[in-house]
Amino acid sequence: MQRYFIPNDNWIYDNQSVLIEGDDFHHIVNVMRMVSGDAIIGCNENEQSYQLILDQIDESQKQLYATIDYELNEDTELPVHISVAQGLPKGDKLDTIVQKGTELGMRSFIPLQMDRSIVKWDRKKQPKKIDRLKKIAKEASEQSHRLMIPHIHSLQSLDDVIDFNHFDKIIVASEYEAKGSHQPARLLDDLMQLIKGQHRVLIIIGPEGGISPHELAKCEDAGVLPARLGKRILRTETASLYLLSVISYSLEETN
Amino acid sequence: MQRYFIPNDNWIYDNQSVLIEGDDFHHIVNVMRMVSGDAIIGCNENEQSYQLILDQIDESQKQLYATIDYELNEDTELPVHISVAQGLPKGDKLDTIVQKGTELGMRSFIPLQMDRSIVKWDRKKQPKKIDRLKKIAKEASEQSHRLMIPHIHSLQSLDDVIDFNHFDKIIVASEYEAKGSHQPARLLDDLMQLIKGQHRVLIIIGPEGGISPHELAKCEDAGVLPARLGKRILRTETASLYLLSVISYSLEETN
Repeated sequence: MQRYFIPNDNWIYDNQSVLIEGDDFHHIVNVMRMVSGDAIIGCNENEQSYQLILDQIDESQKQLYATIDYELNEDTELPVHISVAQGLPKGDKLDTIVQKGTELGMRSFIPLQMDRSIVKWDRKKQPKKIDRLKKIAKEASEQSHRLMIPHIHSLQSLDDVIDFNHFDKIIVASEYEAKGSHQPARLLDDLMQLIKGQHRVLIIIGPEGGISPHELAKCEDAGVLPARLGKRILRTETASLYLLSVISYSLEETN
Repeated sequence: MQRYFIPNDNWIYDNQSVLIEGDDFHHIVNVMRMVSGDAIIGCNENEQSYQLILDQIDESQKQLYATIDYELNEDTELPVHISVAQGLPKGDKLDTIVQKGTELGMRSFIPLQMDRSIVKWDRKKQPKKIDRLKKIAKEASEQSHRLMIPHIHSLQSLDDVIDFNHFDKIIVASEYEAKGSHQPARLLDDLMQLIKGQHRVLIIIGPEGGISPHELAKCEDAGVLPARLGKRILRTETASLYLLSVISYSLEETN
């Protein structure tokens, strides 16, 4: 069933009725061609989801009201809040990273300007790029049955994100751990044990050229935990997917 | 350092010298613009890799000889042989699945014609499609430091691949396990314990519409193990990446 994320202000009359307008109205009425009596899923901003039944559809005002049928009690969010900070990669890789990260349970995404990012974001074009990523996150949230849409931050620096007031643990994917060293400093399994029971975890991923030695030193000095992601060298757009898959497995699929 | 996969027949003079020709010659001489004395990595078909030093470059014959400097003793292959059978998806998703699967350690790939595959492969165009996937697997193997190039099979049916003479365990990603059911029949962790110490494991992934009830019943009757991949609904191209990441984690990053 089609899923829509509806602002809390639109849940009215003691939560008995829901006002839907704008893009969602257009999608329901013109794209899905739904009519009164059809059912959708609506999520509020408190990560609660409901089956809603379409009621009055006002084509002239571009608004519709739906009534709450029942609460769904879905449980599709990771128990730990995972943020991904990604060194700006080339091409349209951010689209893939945000789409797949959303499917895999990421809660926020931070584009990072890093030493080896070949791409630089023009300040003027930034809002457009961020809007595009927000749209991708919204669509992926609907498709993957999320209860929230991951927050897309504006461009930040490594110094901005290494902040233990905002995160309980910070992990950096380090290819230095994968390349050459037969005995990694620490198994990823040990890191997974460390994040269990935490609230807010940040994953930092370098761009195509990887994290620079200077950035890695900065991370390590600050207490960021380096992680090896298997024995092979992963592309930048694969690294966060690997970590999010492993986090889902550790927290949702393991006793 | 650039990595090349060189047929065993080209390792000559008691393995002291290696003949490189064809596309690899072109890549070394014309793309990388390397000269005598430059070093490359060469892998033979026994999953051994060596540092090689370029020696005689014969532009007219489009051939070069390299001498073996030393063996590298790399260890970048998963201990279990993982094959991925993917229901034909739409668009260029197979490219992504083969590229990322190769990075994540997959050893062979089987395109599957399934009930809900919207795409049908024209018999005439099949060799061209397979060749394209082979090229993607080769490039991803070089980039991710693999010791072999995953084998790309021709199009098969579900009946073809459910064959316990070829595989010790077969897993099917089942969204029926993810949708709705709060208590999955079996945690993925239990499946991971089952594949430890096995030799050959097959992962079956449905196309966009998922595996059909008829196909799922066929799998279950045959003893194929259904797996839930976290609590969210993953797109078809994300499912094998999730499983391969978790397999790498379980076998390479866990004590």
